[in-house]
Amino acid sequence: MDHGILFDHARSARIGLPEAVFCEGKPLEALTELLTQFGRGSGRPILFTRLAPDVFAGMPAAVRSSYDYHPLSRTAFGDTLPPREKGRVAVVSAGTADGFVTWEAARTLAYLGIAHKVFEDCGVAGLWRLAERLDEINTFDAVIVVAGLDAALVSVMGGLTPKPVFGVPTSVGYGVAEGGKAALWSALCSCAPGVGIMNIDNGYGAACAAARVVNGL
Amino acid sequence: MDHGILFDHARSARIGLPEAVFCEGKPLEALTELLTQFGRGSGRPILFTRLAPDVFAGMPAAVRSSYDYHPLSRTAFGDTLPPREKGRVAVVSAGTADGFVTWEAARTLAYLGIAHKVFEDCGVAGLWRLAERLDEINTFDAVIVVAGLDAALVSVMGGLTPKPVFGVPTSVGYGVAEGGKAALWSALCSCAPGVGIMNIDNGYGAACAAARVVNGL
Amino acid sequence: MDHGILFDHARSARIGLPEAVFCEGKPLEALTELLTQFGRGSGRPILFTRLAPDVFAGMPAAVRSSYDYHPLSRTAFGDTLPPREKGRVAVVSAGTADGFVTWEAARTLAYLGIAHKVFEDCGVAGLWRLAERLDEINTFDAVIVVAGLDAALVSVMGGLTPKPVFGVPTSVGYGVAEGGKAALWSALCSCAPGVGIMNIDNGYGAACAAARVVNGL
Amino acid sequence: MDHGILFDHARSARIGLPEAVFCEGKPLEALTELLTQFGRGSGRPILFTRLAPDVFAGMPAAVRSSYDYHPLSRTAFGDTLPPREKGRVAVVSAGTADGFVTWEAARTLAYLGIAHKVFEDCGVAGLWRLAERLDEINTFDAVIVVAGLDAALVSVMGGLTPKPVFGVPTSVGYGVAEGGKAALWSALCSCAPGVGIMNIDNGYGAACAAARVVNGL
Amino acid sequence: MDHGILFDHARSARIGLPEAVFCEGKPLEALTELLTQFGRGSGRPILFTRLAPDVFAGMPAAVRSSYDYHPLSRTAFGDTLPPREKGRVAVVSAGTADGFVTWEAARTLAYLGIAHKVFEDCGVAGLWRLAERLDEINTFDAVIVVAGLDAALVSVMGGLTPKPVFGVPTSVGYGVAEGGKAALWSALCSCAPGVGIMNIDNGYGAACAAARVVNGL
Amino acid sequence: MDHGILFDHARSARIGLPEAVFCEGKPLEALTELLTQFGRGSGRPILFTRLAPDVFAGMPAAVRSSYDYHPLSRTAFGDTLPPREKGRVAVVSAGTADGFVTWEAARTLAYLGIAHKVFEDCGVAGLWRLAERLDEINTFDAVIVVAGLDAALVSVMGGLTPKPVFGVPTSVGYGVAEGGKAALWSALCSCAPGVGIMNIDNGYGAACAAARVVNGL
Amino acid sequence: MDHGILFDHARSARIGLPEAVFCEGKPLEALTELLTQFGRGSGRPILFTRLAPDVFAGMPAAVRSSYDYHPLSRTAFGDTLPPREKGRVAVVSAGTADGFVTWEAARTLAYLGIAHKVFEDCGVAGLWRLAERLDEINTFDAVIVVAGLDAALVSVMGGLTPKPVFGVPTSVGYGVAEGGKAALWSALCSCAPGVGIMNIDNGYGAACAAARVVNGL
Amino acid sequence: MDHGILFDHARSARIGLPEAVFCEGKPLEALTELLTQFGRGSGRPILFTRLAPDVFAGMPAAVRSSYDYHPLSRTAFGDTLPPREKGRVAVVSAGTADGFVTWEAARTLAYLGIAHKVFEDCGVAGLWRLAERLDEINTFDAVIVVAGLDAALVSVMGGLTPKPVFGVPTSVGYGVAEGGKAALWSALCSCAPGVGIMNIDNGYGAACAAARVVNGL
Repeated sequence: MDHGILFDHARSARIGLPEAVFCEGKPLEALTELLTQFGRGSGRPILFTRLAPDVFAGMPAAVRSSYDYHPLSRTAFGDTLPPREKGRVAVVSAGTADGFVTWEAARTLAYLGIAHKVFEDCGVAGLWRLAERLDEINTFDAVIVVAGLDAALVSVMGGLTPKPVFGVPTSVGYGVAEGGKAALWSALCSCAPGVGIMNIDNGYGAACAAARVVNGL
Repeated sequence: MDHGILFDHARSARIGLPEAVFCEGKPLEALTELLTQFGRGSGRPILFTRLAPDVFAGMPAAVRSSYDYHPLSRTAFGDTLPPREKGRVAVVSAGTADGFVTWEAARTLAYLGIAHKVFEDCGVAGLWRLAERLDEINTFDAVIVVAGLDAALVSVMGGLTPKPVFGVPTSVGYGVAEGGKAALWSALCSCAPGVGIMNIDNGYGAACAAARVVNGL
Repeated sequence: MDHGILFDHARSARIGLPEAVFCEGKPLEALTELLTQFGRGSGRPILFTRLAPDVFAGMPAAVRSSYDYHPLSRTAFGDTLPPREKGRVAVVSAGTADGFVTWEAARTLAYLGIAHKVFEDCGVAGLWRLAERLDEINTFDAVIVVAGLDAALVSVMGGLTPKPVFGVPTSVGYGVAEGGKAALWSALCSCAPGVGIMNIDNGYGAACAAARVVNGL
Repeated sequence: MDHGILFDHARSARIGLPEAVFCEGKPLEALTELLTQFGRGSGRPILFTRLAPDVFAGMPAAVRSSYDYHPLSRTAFGDTLPPREKGRVAVVSAGTADGFVTWEAARTLAYLGIAHKVFEDCGVAGLWRLAERLDEINTFDAVIVVAGLDAALVSVMGGLTPKPVFGVPTSVGYGVAEGGKAALWSALCSCAPGVGIMNIDNGYGAACAAARVVNGL
Repeated sequence: MDHGILFDHARSARIGLPEAVFCEGKPLEALTELLTQFGRGSGRPILFTRLAPDVFAGMPAAVRSSYDYHPLSRTAFGDTLPPREKGRVAVVSAGTADGFVTWEAARTLAYLGIAHKVFEDCGVAGLWRLAERLDEINTFDAVIVVAGLDAALVSVMGGLTPKPVFGVPTSVGYGVAEGGKAALWSALCSCAPGVGIMNIDNGYGAACAAARVVNGL
Repeated sequence: MDHGILFDHARSARIGLPEAVFCEGKPLEALTELLTQFGRGSGRPILFTRLAPDVFAGMPAAVRSSYDYHPLSRTAFGDTLPPREKGRVAVVSAGTADGFVTWEAARTLAYLGIAHKVFEDCGVAGLWRLAERLDEINTFDAVIVVAGLDAALVSVMGGLTPKPVFGVPTSVGYGVAEGGKAALWSALCSCAPGVGIMNIDNGYGAACAAARVVNGL
Repeated sequence: MDHGILFDHARSARIGLPEAVFCEGKPLEALTELLTQFGRGSGRPILFTRLAPDVFAGMPAAVRSSYDYHPLSRTAFGDTLPPREKGRVAVVSAGTADGFVTWEAARTLAYLGIAHKVFEDCGVAGLWRLAERLDEINTFDAVIVVAGLDAALVSVMGGLTPKPVFGVPTSVGYGVAEGGKAALWSALCSCAPGVGIMNIDNGYGAACAAARVVNGL
Repeated sequence: MDHGILFDHARSARIGLPEAVFCEGKPLEALTELLTQFGRGSGRPILFTRLAPDVFAGMPAAVRSSYDYHPLSRTAFGDTLPPREKGRVAVVSAGTADGFVTWEAARTLAYLGIAHKVFEDCGVAGLWRLAERLDEINTFDAVIVVAGLDAALVSVMGGLTPKPVFGVPTSVGYGVAEGGKAALWSALCSCAPGVGIMNIDNGYGAACAAARVVNGL
């Protein structure tokens, strides 16, 4: 054979992140088949993201009962990865309306076996809420910031911590905020240096980015 | 005659704001002719905006000497309007790079005869600078906020004062910030309610908006 | 503790604007719980915006009966703030299709206890309608202009009054007007100076901006 | 031969509009060669558009002297078409800053042999200027409206005349107005029905559109 | 009184175009009330556009029976304007998928009392279809061209007729064509000079533009 | 070693296309060094694209004299690849203003040793020019279509030939055409099926695409 | 008659591609009528694309039974074209989520009588899957690459084959990927030269492009 | 005083990143004054970014000689921070054209005292170059990936390492790639999970993000 195989097959060994299944747009049968294989006790931990409540509700009760399902974040998993011994991640959000992203990040961390804590409602319209929690947030090893509208919290948080910060703009808002582009652009222009930005609503990706940091501790 | 004339001719009486000449793109001869008419002592106060230093330098010395010219803000005027008895305006900016807009606002206020003070370098990357000045800023009757990049200062300021706030996004920045659209979108999505936003780099407009507030005091 | 607390907690004292709840996207249970707390006679005036008729209809009758609900503007409140002694605001709109924004502004003013009057159907396609009402409009202390499509009314109104003007572009229209960006851009480029612009469809924000003006009278 | 020739070669006979040469981006030699052929007395009237003053200045004096060149509009022609016996076109503009487009339209009409009159400075910031001229404008057979920024004049003019109206948005402005997209979008959304819109800064095209109307009188 | 009234109230006399009601987004009750007033025999001809079939179907039978309703174009009228003695308009479309716009134009012309003929399926993918009909099309006094996707027909038609041409880009298509912006941009850049462009899907506007031409014959 | 090497190093053997150097933005010294190595007789044919005339003029005479340089297309090469025995490519353009792209394609073909012919000025504003040449164009094995503005020629050509067609939108134009996005979108929406589109102004890429077709003959 | 007819009517003879009907947006009756005519055994092979399952399900059983319908790709045909003797096409996709486009391409090839094979799940997140199949893919005469999100597979594939490559960006994804513009832009910027790009989700067009290549073998 | 001071003044202590001065747009005098203060031996290490060669050349020789200036990256510093004992960062770029960003990242790391190595020319058009270096790259603690055009390297690299990855899209390219938005969007949509993205051309920011990771080792 004239080509060697460049890359081994074991993705989780390779990048330290196990498989996840993005469910949006996949037909019910395909999802049911997948979920049937990877439930609790299967020994094969897999994370399902963007699994809508009505889709999950359409599955057989036996399948549903073998999963830890979280409707707000639309995530499900059976087994999780073993808990990490090192590394704690803070998930800070601007408001409860960002919850579907905030908790996608938190749930992904749970699945990855990474200790974490969620700090909601820290938006800059009420800076004192962030101020009260800042000391605690700075005890974590990485900080995920979730914010929509003008995503001003990303800049503010980035200026208040020396830890790795990952900003997730959300699609929360209307008018020019609709769809999250305003939040994304704002986050990318953050005047606080060194904040890595994720795609709009990508809480899963932010958790993976934090996991990469935890990998190296 | 079958149509009456709807509106009178005296614009400054009508909207309380005198004429201004936007100089960008106007040929040198036309500008020279205009500046020759409205210099100091002409009794006809007119504000020239976007008058570039090299254009101003190309005018006859006699014309130049009858104007108060400010290169950073690219503004010139001969006479000003009479000082207002009431109304003071704060001009708060994120950084010195926004100076060409900050000072366009300040110079317009000077021309309009409105008391004002400039607070530069209050960007959210160093919130303590804003905090130190907040009490003083809140003694003014209206607040103009000038900021580029993510314009996070607009939201933060809007959440800290009960006064009328006018946000001016600036074109300062590169990448997605280039041209100021990111700042504009961010400002329009401000989570602090009731902030009126101006076109990008429109310091003149923000001063006029503040003047409308001063008109009513 | 090594940080002081920068900002006090009493937002309404701080910026003169009480809390509002943006209901879009919040689940029914959460909204029901909130509305149950803040109805008429609760002594805690809160404004609910973007509360869709079918969502409101899904609440218990007892909750519904303790609210003043307005379907077109999708706003609800129980108690209002005490009437202000000074300050009257005109809400001028281009057409009835802009009504959902026009009345969000008007209802927010009602909730804030600010005297106001709505002038609908003043679009520039029929300038005489505006002309007939101009003298009356100019007796108010601030003017909110609501317009979709090309938002030409914002410029026209801005050129006819010395009062603070806040322009609200609306999402009314199709083709390039769809979503309101054409109206927003047009409003930001208004050739009448000193008009503060709000996010698309943000009638609530315009009312808050006018309230900031009223605060200072 | 298995294909007939569908269309005859005589374009001016076919669409009633003679050739024009768009000069921007063409090298000096190519332009010099073209201008050498079509000067005054050549009997071959051709219109050159977007011919920059410094490019024209770089041509031989003999060539230059056989042309009627107009620097503001950057147009040149030697011979013109014979004057039309019917049809008069009004060119109405918002401000002198739009002059490079206004006069491109007017010069194209001159070249086409069509009677016309320019009405500058009719922007909606000073509606009385338009009002004073409206009766005269309505004596023309077609109206070209040239406006930048929010192009509100297009809507206003469209609501005041029964004549064919062609709107030309211009690239005049900064911030969101820069490049003319705000003016274009606004013009396309005009609330006055039946206004045909041209590409940004396309004064030449508007004159051709008016010529098509004149063709049919 | 210190202001005269600039413009008279009779819009149809002023711009030669009677009232139309854009129904999209208006509530059923409001529409029912309007349609009840202006049916056949009311002597008050009004055109209703964007009146969806299911909305029309929801009205009382008595109201429906007094209207000429056309589901594809979503237009309705009772009485029409008196037939014009002069002026015929061709409506040329690229494909049947553009029919909802093509027929909005045609129906508006019918309502305006203007003679017209529809030429469908003339898209440039089959140029012979246009070629066969070109001589007939050129007997009309104005040409409306309706096309989606790349709107190439606008350019082609503009190069084959000396008559006034109004191009209507449509929202037909997917990917970059979705929503009609590609067609709009293409139409605005037409290499055939003097084509007036309308907003996306604005068949009504094109008919009004043609009516302005007919006004002057 | 735990990874094999997946891909061999000989790119030209692998994809049948030799190296090219994109010169824009590279410093003069780096370019001079590169050009010094690969001149005529070096036995190492390399194509330089986007090599501006003033940059080339700044190189030593000895370097310049060993290159075939073509200013309009901004391309240079010393040796070429051996002539292909099969495969001829037509390069069809809308106008001479597109020449910098048309000839970049043609020059790339020359360098690749592929027979080709350029057909300029076939824009749809004068369809007879294309009609006259169509039979000849259809004798080629692939057709490259170069067009700016509305790029209508891409659709038209795609409907008239069974051969592989590659469309190259150009940045020629102003207003909405500026930068070539309108042409690109139009080309992507072509109603003629099966046309592969290249990035704006990418004549080089279109020639490579045609070379891939020639590879397989 | 003064015009010959330029183009013959037999499109399939002219460009080697038979008719296809794009069903999206066409009413059920019109589609039913069309499908009734062109079923199996009609001797008139026609491809129906974007024929949604629920629309197909709404047709009479007799019509449905005379078609080969494929729900994922939303395509139907009765008869196909005769098998081609030469030419094989590979359809390579990044993931199963792209299946609706992948299979639209494959089904169009089936209908065109062109041999082909589908290679799914070759996305760059698992490069070894592509590496394992590369030798086989390179035995085909043309390669269609289907990918959403960042469409990185288009570049990677383009760098690994000398065959004609047609890239189809898909609308799969969320945030900035939503609608497929990110994939499209990425594909157009591919650093592998000579890849022809299709409109977003246009699997049909890619198959037609490949058919043009097959035409010439 | 009724407000405490929330945040201390020592930014470098607070976020572990020292001051940097963004020079673009700052006037020569201001820059000269700043550089005069912070040269080698001043004991105050400051990084100057976006300091153009011609600007630096305009400074006094004495100032210039006290700086380590790097023209390609447009960075300058006098003193650096003390070398970190832990943490090494790989800077991987697609091509030499990205050098101005690649080296801005590398120089920022040098200034921060962080060990690093640059791996240029790893673009996906030649995957073997990346494959050869992959084992070495994976010995570093964080990976910065710099790429323009379609930024496919960001996805590919993200799929091959378990380390924190920060992607920097660059403005290298033309057509849809111009300005870097295509690269940015592509990077944000990366199919490899957990990659933090920076603003276009923001090499400085990526180095700061890597420094935050190093902070925690």
